[in-house]
Amino acid sequence: MLRWLTAGESHGPELLAIVEGLPAGIPVTLDAIRLDLARRKLGYGRGARMKFEQDELNISGGVRHGLTLGGPVALRIGNTEWPKWADVMSPEPVDPALLARGRGAPLVRPRPGHADLVGMQKYDFDEARPVLERASARETAARVALGAVARAFLAGLGIELVSHTLSIGPVRVPEGSSLPRPGDVDTLDADPLRCFDTATSALMVAEVDAAHKDGDTLGGIVEVLAYNLPPGLGSFVHWDRRLDSQLAAALMGIQAIKGVEVGDGFLTTTRRGSDAHDELVQVDDQILRASDKAGGTEGGMSTGTVLRVRAGMKPIATIPRALRTVDITTSEAAPAHHQRSDVCAVPAAGVVAEAMVALVLANSVLEKFGGDSLGETKRNLDSYLANIPANLRTGASSDATL
Amino acid sequence: MLRWLTAGESHGPELLAIVEGLPAGIPVTLDAIRLDLARRKLGYGRGARMKFEQDELNISGGVRHGLTLGGPVALRIGNTEWPKWADVMSPEPVDPALLARGRGAPLVRPRPGHADLVGMQKYDFDEARPVLERASARETAARVALGAVARAFLAGLGIELVSHTLSIGPVRVPEGSSLPRPGDVDTLDADPLRCFDTATSALMVAEVDAAHKDGDTLGGIVEVLAYNLPPGLGSFVHWDRRLDSQLAAALMGIQAIKGVEVGDGFLTTTRRGSDAHDELVQVDDQILRASDKAGGTEGGMSTGTVLRVRAGMKPIATIPRALRTVDITTSEAAPAHHQRSDVCAVPAAGVVAEAMVALVLANSVLEKFGGDSLGETKRNLDSYLANIPANLRTGASSDATL
Amino acid sequence: MLRWLTAGESHGPELLAIVEGLPAGIPVTLDAIRLDLARRKLGYGRGARMKFEQDELNISGGVRHGLTLGGPVALRIGNTEWPKWADVMSPEPVDPALLARGRGAPLVRPRPGHADLVGMQKYDFDEARPVLERASARETAARVALGAVARAFLAGLGIELVSHTLSIGPVRVPEGSSLPRPGDVDTLDADPLRCFDTATSALMVAEVDAAHKDGDTLGGIVEVLAYNLPPGLGSFVHWDRRLDSQLAAALMGIQAIKGVEVGDGFLTTTRRGSDAHDELVQVDDQILRASDKAGGTEGGMSTGTVLRVRAGMKPIATIPRALRTVDITTSEAAPAHHQRSDVCAVPAAGVVAEAMVALVLANSVLEKFGGDSLGETKRNLDSYLANIPANLRTGASSDATL
Amino acid sequence: MLRWLTAGESHGPELLAIVEGLPAGIPVTLDAIRLDLARRKLGYGRGARMKFEQDELNISGGVRHGLTLGGPVALRIGNTEWPKWADVMSPEPVDPALLARGRGAPLVRPRPGHADLVGMQKYDFDEARPVLERASARETAARVALGAVARAFLAGLGIELVSHTLSIGPVRVPEGSSLPRPGDVDTLDADPLRCFDTATSALMVAEVDAAHKDGDTLGGIVEVLAYNLPPGLGSFVHWDRRLDSQLAAALMGIQAIKGVEVGDGFLTTTRRGSDAHDELVQVDDQILRASDKAGGTEGGMSTGTVLRVRAGMKPIATIPRALRTVDITTSEAAPAHHQRSDVCAVPAAGVVAEAMVALVLANSVLEKFGGDSLGETKRNLDSYLANIPANLRTGASSDATL
Repeated sequence: MLRWLTAGESHGPELLAIVEGLPAGIPVTLDAIRLDLARRKLGYGRGARMKFEQDELNISGGVRHGLTLGGPVALRIGNTEWPKWADVMSPEPVDPALLARGRGAPLVRPRPGHADLVGMQKYDFDEARPVLERASARETAARVALGAVARAFLAGLGIELVSHTLSIGPVRVPEGSSLPRPGDVDTLDADPLRCFDTATSALMVAEVDAAHKDGDTLGGIVEVLAYNLPPGLGSFVHWDRRLDSQLAAALMGIQAIKGVEVGDGFLTTTRRGSDAHDELVQVDDQILRASDKAGGTEGGMSTGTVLRVRAGMKPIATIPRALRTVDITTSEAAPAHHQRSDVCAVPAAGVVAEAMVALVLANSVLEKFGGDSLGETKRNLDSYLANIPANLRTGASSDATL
Repeated sequence: MLRWLTAGESHGPELLAIVEGLPAGIPVTLDAIRLDLARRKLGYGRGARMKFEQDELNISGGVRHGLTLGGPVALRIGNTEWPKWADVMSPEPVDPALLARGRGAPLVRPRPGHADLVGMQKYDFDEARPVLERASARETAARVALGAVARAFLAGLGIELVSHTLSIGPVRVPEGSSLPRPGDVDTLDADPLRCFDTATSALMVAEVDAAHKDGDTLGGIVEVLAYNLPPGLGSFVHWDRRLDSQLAAALMGIQAIKGVEVGDGFLTTTRRGSDAHDELVQVDDQILRASDKAGGTEGGMSTGTVLRVRAGMKPIATIPRALRTVDITTSEAAPAHHQRSDVCAVPAAGVVAEAMVALVLANSVLEKFGGDSLGETKRNLDSYLANIPANLRTGASSDATL
Repeated sequence: MLRWLTAGESHGPELLAIVEGLPAGIPVTLDAIRLDLARRKLGYGRGARMKFEQDELNISGGVRHGLTLGGPVALRIGNTEWPKWADVMSPEPVDPALLARGRGAPLVRPRPGHADLVGMQKYDFDEARPVLERASARETAARVALGAVARAFLAGLGIELVSHTLSIGPVRVPEGSSLPRPGDVDTLDADPLRCFDTATSALMVAEVDAAHKDGDTLGGIVEVLAYNLPPGLGSFVHWDRRLDSQLAAALMGIQAIKGVEVGDGFLTTTRRGSDAHDELVQVDDQILRASDKAGGTEGGMSTGTVLRVRAGMKPIATIPRALRTVDITTSEAAPAHHQRSDVCAVPAAGVVAEAMVALVLANSVLEKFGGDSLGETKRNLDSYLANIPANLRTGASSDATL
Repeated sequence: MLRWLTAGESHGPELLAIVEGLPAGIPVTLDAIRLDLARRKLGYGRGARMKFEQDELNISGGVRHGLTLGGPVALRIGNTEWPKWADVMSPEPVDPALLARGRGAPLVRPRPGHADLVGMQKYDFDEARPVLERASARETAARVALGAVARAFLAGLGIELVSHTLSIGPVRVPEGSSLPRPGDVDTLDADPLRCFDTATSALMVAEVDAAHKDGDTLGGIVEVLAYNLPPGLGSFVHWDRRLDSQLAAALMGIQAIKGVEVGDGFLTTTRRGSDAHDELVQVDDQILRASDKAGGTEGGMSTGTVLRVRAGMKPIATIPRALRTVDITTSEAAPAHHQRSDVCAVPAAGVVAEAMVALVLANSVLEKFGGDSLGETKRNLDSYLANIPANLRTGASSDATL
């Protein structure tokens, strides 16, 4: 069982992240994690903070000479802007006089679409700063760092992840477009919106420009793919053993996500049964599926074909054209606080979603195969595949011509 | 923390269900649970089994004289058809000769869209019977029974749930239709498809008839609403503390669900930020929201307005017009097994979804308010609401006129 | 990960037990479970209830034709005395007039050493019946039944458990006595106190007789041994991964247990370091330990030699010579309720402890080796052992002559 | 529910610790945590490392202006000796030439009584360094830091912890000695062995001196007390809800602990029932217990009198007079590695045990009372106590004169 926690505030000194339960012997390097942290900042339509935000990465524990040790892996991501925030976010008490103005002033106009107002009610705060500091998507940097470690584990087993942008606001990749594969990741990362369809990407850029001009923001949909999974991760035996249930929790657990789909998702609800399932056809020595509508799960288990899940992100709720709210010190109407922000964070959400999927899959692999070293897990996985009887062997790709 | 497990196979002697962690003093009766079990069988387009399937309900533990005891609540649902299956599903070894034909014959044509094939690979079975017996949606009867208990707990706190059908195949309730309220449950249950819009319901009936005539099946979308939640269930502090993450896991953990939405879900991804969030307006002594697009959560927490979540169900995968598969004893093409089945199980899925939401909310309430008796939990909840400062009080309904 | 819950009250209609997470293909029979249930009633000094208490065992799910299915295994243990208790413990409301006297009368003299008084405070009950019904050790029947299933899994991997009685009151097996082995279980079960040392057993019988004559009760110490564990179950990487921590929780989680030891336990605290550890000696092609003081764990992991843990049970708190308490209806002094009871339940506690250890070990095995069928788990375990490098191979027994 | 993880190696750059689930508004300061870290180094018989080991403490998240924020609290403890170990423990690959000698040389003589040998088997390491770095008791600094935070939460509810040394090797505080109270903590910390009995403390000093002279080491027993707990923490309803089970896991989860007792523990097993339980006596308006043999738990719940638990620590396994082991590069006999070490770490173990108990109690309090701010938890606790009916009120101290 994999357990992981993140900690730290948006403008605090640093983020910490610990993941516990990974085997020993997984290759983990600062560069690999930094690469994912950098990918999290990608995307046309990001605001100034992405440029400011320098991720000073340290591996604090769990890795020695480039390999995991079997104990908790601990990462630390420093905040280079910390000196500006040292009083406002000081763990130790500070002279209130230092906080009366500027960054330290209380945030008393809770922003619609944010945790601000409910957070104050729940935790008994008289302003929103203590809420938004943790609710902020800055925290996803810690998840992405952990995801990079999980991905390294999966890579050691031959499993590879890809994420891409399916839509930005109303602009969407046409149904039936081809899916990116692991070899396409660099191409995707080079695209302004991490979109695999060039024509659509251009339309997305235009959409971002238009929204920016209007002082508005955009959401969209990302899709995560996992290649080379073995069949049988997750299970139908109990609801929370289902891989799709775990993936849904992980994706809906990302800030601003309001919808999750597996495979064709809601589109499938409009199809008739005769057109909604992946038929099985024997081809030579293996059974192939004739389509990928289910997104690589049946009965809550990976089928061994490409896993495909989606997350729908609402538009950023901090909007230049400010939303209506209330000043809680006067109970008078007021425009919501507006801090520097992005027009659209969807491309980055794809990288975060990838990290969450990686963590879920790493856990599922450990549940099925165990193992305290990468070699042991790999051995168990290979042995499982080799022991599937000949008449039950299935292909890793569907074949639409069948 | 609430923990619960279900057990039992589709054609086994009985289903068991245990929920652990509920306070003492919750009114629980056989009739209340039976009512929900009966509601699970509702819906136009159900097959013969729903009529056969008699739920012999027993409370095996945790309830005395109509009130919970604080210990595990245990329910047992007998299978009245068990005598027909006593050999096929016997826990004890039986003479193989008894199993060679009829119900006992091995199921060697795995059905597309079901757990059959992957289940055999994963658990090392040479036929699908041991897989489908647990993967079957019969198991949801146990969840609905537990959900009825969770609902009784919530009712004791004033929280009420409603579910309804949003779409059947391509037929969908128009955007902007009014939402059912707790008082509408009987009306909903009386509708052939548990649809709150009469005109749409008639179209749904026609759609089911058409699919039935074509030997085909249908999916659809259900929505669950929770009224009178306090603000602040769930949290933004860690991804898996988020109420929306927990709800997504619970809903995607239902058989055949392929998509989950909170509030307007994927529709929100197409809107601009200025049109996607619920603005805050002071009205007299409380802050009201001007809309309900978010579905009653912000920052992963309940806002105190109506909670609204959706689950999208794929069409039933056991289809009279059989899908292509392989006979694994010969590796030859074959039509998939077809057992008696329904055209459409969406209305029932709404009742199951309600149960899952009830269990998630009961857990969230306990996490926030604790309590070992219903009275203690209620006292803590009331005290929390009473202690929210006057300037942070919010309304339980949005007001679209603001 | 193994999850399990029990449910049911001492005088309720039945106990239920579900264990979730076991692989498919484990041989499970009613007879094997019944055998352990019968062993739980063993022991000189048991009262009348052990004779009354008939365990009507059913397997409600998770087992087909003698083998587990990979889903939850569900057991049901009927209470043959239920008709006498049907009103008193009815889940449904009953006419209060039926309850005013006899079995139904409120229990208003909370017994010292029991959950009665605190249970009423915690769960807001005005009498002790709703507390003691669940707090009673009758519940351990459900654990023993689950333990029998876990033991069957372990047996499939070659791991065997033995429990025996170390002491009854002040009468204790001499330090340095030989340990029973799996082949000795029948001999142990035939001993009046499940004691492996015949001379001590006779003294224990005398001690029980003396206590019985005095209207008093006795406690004692049991020891559980596990043979043929692989090295490396549990881990040092996090406190709750430690096998000894998990075993301590499991044993202290048994009613009436007040102390837990691993290996020589508290005796070790009195030794000097030079005399407290198991030295390592190369003998032919393996490293042997020269003693077993540690009880088969180092660094929170199984060493591969015999695992040895102990639980200390307080004397039964329901004592013929009644303890002082208070009648809560009058706040006057009163003798504690005395229901029929045993002089000593230590031999049975050994069987319960065995069940708890079996469940912990089954979970640890799954964590390390995974597997969805017994064959897969076994294959992974064998592969692990085969891959330990030649220079790190260790023996399964210590050698005191080294 | 409280979740917490620690990370980091003994000679790594730093230890990290995260605790998730604490309410907002708990006063937490660097000084309070530093104080406990300093207390962890107390005790006669500690080696040089305790003087070297400087704990550079940082609060990385979860605390602002001296109060918790409701999110994860993150602590970082720097290792001032890190520069000496930067190559040996580098997370990044280093030139093997740098590691051939001195600190970097492989540890190939696994130490008896340590995780070394099994750790290599389990995690597939060819030397013991990667094992002992995490298995080392240095990790307990992280637990003590987290414990200080948990203690601050408990203090806000009026609950106070004390730990003291009961025995060092064979030297033990006489049965029946008086127990230290919260006001005695400074006195205890000033005692060379944190022993509350002055005469015994002197004998302990002599015992340590003797062992030191002989090149040997010592273990002992510590006891943790908690004052002012409410009745009803933990529960009898399921084994792992029992407070004593959770405490046993926490204490046995400390490095080198081999035995755990609640109250009089194993001594109780030698008593007869009539002499083993805490009788109940009405005194004025409350029910008092006449003794404290049970250690403040009944039925797995706190009774509201002083909680008393013990942990038995084996003697330190790194012994100047080296134990026999094997050089795994040659399979020849060799003395175990001996690194600088202590004669006795029992007084420090008391402080670690205190931390573990604090974390368990904090979790139990949250489970029973919920709350997202210290004020809310306190309000719920007070309300619970106020609502216990007059005839069920119990005292916070026993009275031995009754």
